[in-house]
Amino acid sequence: MIGGDAAGMSAAHSALRAAKAAGREARIVVLETTGDTSYSACGIPYWIAGEVASGDDLVARTADEHRAAGIDLRLHARATAVDTTARTVTYRQDETTHTIEYDELVLATGAHPVVPAWARTPAGALVAGVHPVKNLDDGALWTELLAGPARRAVIVGGGYIGIEMAEALLHRGLSVTLLTRSRVMGSLDPDLGELIERALVEAGVDVRTDTTVTRLTSVDGAVTSAVTTDGDEVEADVVVLALGVVPATELGEAAGVPVGIARGYLPDDQGRVAPHVWAAGDCCESQHRMTGERDFVALGTHANKQGRVVGDALFGGSRAFHGVLGTAITRFAAGGRVTEIARTGLSTRQAVDAGHDVAVLATESSTVSGYMPGAETMVTKVIADRRTRALLGVQIVGGPGAGKRIDAAAAALWGRMSVDDLAEMDLSYAPPFATVWDALQIAARRLAERI
Amino acid sequence: MIGGDAAGMSAAHSALRAAKAAGREARIVVLETTGDTSYSACGIPYWIAGEVASGDDLVARTADEHRAAGIDLRLHARATAVDTTARTVTYRQDETTHTIEYDELVLATGAHPVVPAWARTPAGALVAGVHPVKNLDDGALWTELLAGPARRAVIVGGGYIGIEMAEALLHRGLSVTLLTRSRVMGSLDPDLGELIERALVEAGVDVRTDTTVTRLTSVDGAVTSAVTTDGDEVEADVVVLALGVVPATELGEAAGVPVGIARGYLPDDQGRVAPHVWAAGDCCESQHRMTGERDFVALGTHANKQGRVVGDALFGGSRAFHGVLGTAITRFAAGGRVTEIARTGLSTRQAVDAGHDVAVLATESSTVSGYMPGAETMVTKVIADRRTRALLGVQIVGGPGAGKRIDAAAAALWGRMSVDDLAEMDLSYAPPFATVWDALQIAARRLAERI
Repeated sequence: MIGGDAAGMSAAHSALRAAKAAGREARIVVLETTGDTSYSACGIPYWIAGEVASGDDLVARTADEHRAAGIDLRLHARATAVDTTARTVTYRQDETTHTIEYDELVLATGAHPVVPAWARTPAGALVAGVHPVKNLDDGALWTELLAGPARRAVIVGGGYIGIEMAEALLHRGLSVTLLTRSRVMGSLDPDLGELIERALVEAGVDVRTDTTVTRLTSVDGAVTSAVTTDGDEVEADVVVLALGVVPATELGEAAGVPVGIARGYLPDDQGRVAPHVWAAGDCCESQHRMTGERDFVALGTHANKQGRVVGDALFGGSRAFHGVLGTAITRFAAGGRVTEIARTGLSTRQAVDAGHDVAVLATESSTVSGYMPGAETMVTKVIADRRTRALLGVQIVGGPGAGKRIDAAAAALWGRMSVDDLAEMDLSYAPPFATVWDALQIAARRLAERI
Repeated sequence: MIGGDAAGMSAAHSALRAAKAAGREARIVVLETTGDTSYSACGIPYWIAGEVASGDDLVARTADEHRAAGIDLRLHARATAVDTTARTVTYRQDETTHTIEYDELVLATGAHPVVPAWARTPAGALVAGVHPVKNLDDGALWTELLAGPARRAVIVGGGYIGIEMAEALLHRGLSVTLLTRSRVMGSLDPDLGELIERALVEAGVDVRTDTTVTRLTSVDGAVTSAVTTDGDEVEADVVVLALGVVPATELGEAAGVPVGIARGYLPDDQGRVAPHVWAAGDCCESQHRMTGERDFVALGTHANKQGRVVGDALFGGSRAFHGVLGTAITRFAAGGRVTEIARTGLSTRQAVDAGHDVAVLATESSTVSGYMPGAETMVTKVIADRRTRALLGVQIVGGPGAGKRIDAAAAALWGRMSVDDLAEMDLSYAPPFATVWDALQIAARRLAERI
């Protein structure tokens, strides 16, 4: 396995189990560039916020634990070349070049954060104070940066990491400006993105949409401001790069493994990308179940599931990865208010692009029975096909308890159910948990009545 | 409509909308025995607890609001007879007997709380201090009872209302003894019921299983103790009757409308129970989607959905009620700890009785990522058919955030999905909301691996 995070280590352990079940011997080598394995990248903003005490807490299984299970784990080992004909991998470790042979190769190289040219010095290094949020080393660097006198932060990017870092930096007492190329949370429809933007603004974030950074100013190599495409200069002690990620597929591409439009590998249901070569996790594109098209969704939960499938397949297993729905969730918590954000399936734009005759409705309702303490407003948007009545997507923005409701919608999409199914199904009700028609069902029912 | 709570008023409003859509005139008369309409019976324990300030808060729509919508609502009007041949209803109001004609009749008479003989005086009244928890009048009586010097409560019944009242009475500072005929929360498997019993005991409830009351002692007509089948005498200032409900079908039965094993009406998908007679809500049995058999599930969410279907059907609509899964949720919150309790589909016992070759596994996991503040333990039990791999049921007991996960399982059951679907589907993940494999999916995956 090349890569020792979620996908690679899931594949390694799954392969061990599959080999054992098949009565075969498995010799599994994992090459990992960093010194860390099996960590939660998604947890890093909460470490930076101070909610999680240490980067070690984010490590699900340590190197020692993997080795004790029988995995030959090589850390600080950077793969530099793959030869799929000779079946060899070349890697650098301790300033030495090694070549090892494989019977089967698993590419689990993850994704790279997007780093624009303006973030780098002429020599190619990151400007001091400017950094992405991707791996544990990044997390450690951020805790160092914030231990100093930094007071002003600019976050570039208004997606998941952008708003999670806005929460983290507000918690750390910084003033925060968030720049986004288009709108906040563009993976949701604009009306729901607007609600999130409002929550950011109410918490004191200076949100600037339809803009980005053209250049930085710096003093003694450390950032002092970001100059935007609007010509504004925003003072900054630190700049968060939250512009998304791209699949880390250089190794495979150089070896002739095909990639897709998003430059991710294109595994089949079992993870195969070429003879004796497999891929899993953020370096892959996945099949979107609502369109049948490939989509790039970098998320730990898929990486784990795909790694498990691949490890199993290496020893003849028949498990499969059955695609993604684009389900996602996060929150923005600041100033005593929590805004939960979730989506699954197609957005309105995606549904139109996929050729659906789209019916869509956003409905405001309550997280729990209105008379209960803690009842908060939530907005549920339901997207369906007007002709077939198929449910296409759901989006939620609301107070505590709103977000995880998305799972019932995701299950309905997984089963290719209709908007009527979502309205009628037997969801749970009790006053501390829901209104008598659950928010999801009020929203689905109202849309169903209109089509 | 006979009955002006969830089912009856939903039917009334649905009928108004359907008539309007059909360009027809609707004259809708609702007869309601009490002085209240459209109230949340499920909210009464939280009113008794003091979490909800007033019974008025539990009223979703007042009599005036219904009348303003064009409904001829007659309160304190007790229907005494139905003649399905003459199509008349006789009722008593203001000590006068009235008879009205109908074109279509909707029976929405709800359910009666079970009141054992020992709870009554020789004259047939309830012993003072002894009361069920069913309608707003009961709620008002409980707030009066608890305004006095009552210190010791006995709750008879260990189901949903029993544990909700245990929470309420602990909140009010009473000492609580809970007696249950078999185990606590018998609608869950015994191992999960055990977890709930433990939570009750840890909060200071004196839980006595496999017992019930044989008689009461009283002084000056007010209860002073309950004597159990074990011969124990438990001192009590108040006794809560939480022994469940039975369908209130006397009117229909007397008029020849058929009832089922549980003595509930047997509506078809549109709610029809006899020519020109319809029924909705707690007076009905519903089809259980997992067995195809009739089941009696008294729950406001079904009452609302059924009422809507019936109202629509009265004016030619084609909506249908597609059955129940037995989804239910509640909580027990006391002493700073919250235990959420949820179930859907068949329990192990129900699955065996229905002839399945049952595979079952309970898995302990975490409500959110283990390193996040607020992570709590939850136990998820998954029940599947070993031969077909069909998902049959899920049960959850755990900390805040655990319970509402049941909805994703309910959606999977609604779509007749497999245990593999539940393990593989694209559920939402972020550290403040879930582990990287959601608790539901860990549990489903582990069971799937064993069958």
